[in-house]
Amino acid sequence: MAMTHDVLGFTVGTAAAGVRDGTPSRTDVALIASDRICAAAGVFTTNQVIAAPCVVTRRHLEQGRLRGIDVNSGNANACTGEQGERHAVMMARAAAQRIGCDPYEVAVASTGVIGVPLPVERIMKAVKGIGLRPGEWSDVAKAIMTTDTKPKLLGVELPLRAGTVHVRGVAKGAGMIHPNMATMLAFVMTDADVEVSALRHFVRHASERTFNAISVDGDTSTNDTLLVLANGASGVKPEGDELAQFANVLEGVCETLAREIVADGEGVTKVFEVSIRGAETAEDARRAARTVTTSSLVKTAIHGSDPNWGRILAAAGRSGAKVDQTHASVRIGEVVVFAAGAPRPLDRDAVRRVFDRKEIPIEVDLGVGAETARAWGTDLSEEYVRINADYTT
Amino acid sequence: MAMTHDVLGFTVGTAAAGVRDGTPSRTDVALIASDRICAAAGVFTTNQVIAAPCVVTRRHLEQGRLRGIDVNSGNANACTGEQGERHAVMMARAAAQRIGCDPYEVAVASTGVIGVPLPVERIMKAVKGIGLRPGEWSDVAKAIMTTDTKPKLLGVELPLRAGTVHVRGVAKGAGMIHPNMATMLAFVMTDADVEVSALRHFVRHASERTFNAISVDGDTSTNDTLLVLANGASGVKPEGDELAQFANVLEGVCETLAREIVADGEGVTKVFEVSIRGAETAEDARRAARTVTTSSLVKTAIHGSDPNWGRILAAAGRSGAKVDQTHASVRIGEVVVFAAGAPRPLDRDAVRRVFDRKEIPIEVDLGVGAETARAWGTDLSEEYVRINADYTT
Repeated sequence: MAMTHDVLGFTVGTAAAGVRDGTPSRTDVALIASDRICAAAGVFTTNQVIAAPCVVTRRHLEQGRLRGIDVNSGNANACTGEQGERHAVMMARAAAQRIGCDPYEVAVASTGVIGVPLPVERIMKAVKGIGLRPGEWSDVAKAIMTTDTKPKLLGVELPLRAGTVHVRGVAKGAGMIHPNMATMLAFVMTDADVEVSALRHFVRHASERTFNAISVDGDTSTNDTLLVLANGASGVKPEGDELAQFANVLEGVCETLAREIVADGEGVTKVFEVSIRGAETAEDARRAARTVTTSSLVKTAIHGSDPNWGRILAAAGRSGAKVDQTHASVRIGEVVVFAAGAPRPLDRDAVRRVFDRKEIPIEVDLGVGAETARAWGTDLSEEYVRINADYTT
Repeated sequence: MAMTHDVLGFTVGTAAAGVRDGTPSRTDVALIASDRICAAAGVFTTNQVIAAPCVVTRRHLEQGRLRGIDVNSGNANACTGEQGERHAVMMARAAAQRIGCDPYEVAVASTGVIGVPLPVERIMKAVKGIGLRPGEWSDVAKAIMTTDTKPKLLGVELPLRAGTVHVRGVAKGAGMIHPNMATMLAFVMTDADVEVSALRHFVRHASERTFNAISVDGDTSTNDTLLVLANGASGVKPEGDELAQFANVLEGVCETLAREIVADGEGVTKVFEVSIRGAETAEDARRAARTVTTSSLVKTAIHGSDPNWGRILAAAGRSGAKVDQTHASVRIGEVVVFAAGAPRPLDRDAVRRVFDRKEIPIEVDLGVGAETARAWGTDLSEEYVRINADYTT
């Protein structure tokens, strides 16, 4: 799946608008445009305190058709009262003017400080003057960064019988982190020709298994946004088996971006993957996986390289999932630490080698059924506390 | 409500059985006995990975009648396979022999390391030799401590028309902490004459509003137990208004013990109380209160004395409770930091004074209804991470 050509029919541009404090020291506005109308689907934060750009974009997505995405970093346009929505619409209008389309065909996204009015005039001016070119996706990835330490992007191609389709993903970090909260933004563009209804289904399914299965600190931002645009510029329309193949590639792109986001969380020194097996229902598996990844006691144990099966099992046990402790088992890497209701003698060297890995695999068998789920989490470090306690409003 | 006489008809005793490692260096077994049968009710951990003593005590409580409680620290008898239940029953039998009652009239509770077989012979021997005397409740509170830094107990008396009834509470700390997990144990004894059905109702209600509303690290232990015993030795049977008064006193005792447990959590430097107002439903209020107290970002902000309304509001917003952000408000102590959808200018000195208090009051109005709830939480400190990461199994 190496990239030879990029997604066809898309152009991008960035600008330094000085969103944060009026000083244009870094790029902080990006525009993504398609030369034709795209089938589009999205998933937004479930937080009841939802930011204005999410409200506006959700409305624009009702038709399932977009021409572009207008995004800024430096200011989240969240908790900004009634003017927030007005400003988000103004951003969409400026982008529509630049692209040459209807404002309802533009999605907007913002990330950065909350509770501060958006400097919308500066953003509009920058957007109107942006130069659009194909292929500069790393510029987009950089412009949307806030506390991320590296840009997150990836491109894959999928050869199908009628030709090759391309999928491009760009994202920025999760975790409601310094200064007030950061946001997960992820945009996926493809030149495959896909119906809106199918795309909506794929996006819901993929986000549930990827972006919704990661956690840095258990908090959900007010601005989280995933958008997927399919413009059909490849002339290839996957159907039947090939549509399933396309859905898998789409999920793979989401998973890669999601794991990059986890690994780049602030104060993160270790990442772990929890695989649940033997659950009675898929919902039980999902719950158990996510409860283990968000448990403070598991996260501190991971930080201390402690194979603490007691905390892992207890987290699964309180998740609401059914657990049969006499048939449950816990494995850290290849090392079985708990089986058949009792702890196993510990091979400390083998465990130590697992904790030295880039991503620590933890498998918990609940011992009651056949359903599975995965989730990804991060350790809880003194550094995390320091970063999040030191900021003063 | 000062204490002049203690609960009538109860005697207690403690012993040093060397539960942890065979060395009897501290008291680690306690027996609570009533001279007559008590109406009894309890609440146990909802963790699916439930410890053997909880399973056995739940069974013994089905009749709603107990004569005593046999408890040990140093070993939780959790994740100990099939022999765990056998050992818990053996504890009950030894206590029944000492008290002179049926084993089904004894509740057992254990707290300490998990995954290690209970040294039940040592405990049985100690229980059989225990001397029972009235009034030595602080000995009981000390014997059940694990990582607690101080014993937790309190006694209140309630003068009623037909005479005075007494309520005595003893508890140990929450938080699944070093070495593997600690446990919340709380025992409340009264000499009031109360029907089992009423007592069960009061206990469920009180625990929901007190012990279930506290969180040190969001994890639920495998051994959590609350037991309430009413032996009627005062000869006073509260009815009507006086029964409601008794229920209030019972809840007050539970709330005091619960707040002491929070304040004594390991690595805790600050405690905060979250009051939710303006919720649409009681369930919404409850959820919002607990989500704010368990948010890592709120907990680190509290640690850093940061009046971070953004994190508080976002935690309430992701709890599932309905929030109208244009009518929501956040108050820290007396200082309104967010109102009518927008942040307020900050009086830093006033806020600093609030953060210097022993318990920091935070009030969040969700702006949609009239329901309220409270919950208590702790800050997240570097010390907490250090304590919980340093332990190696």
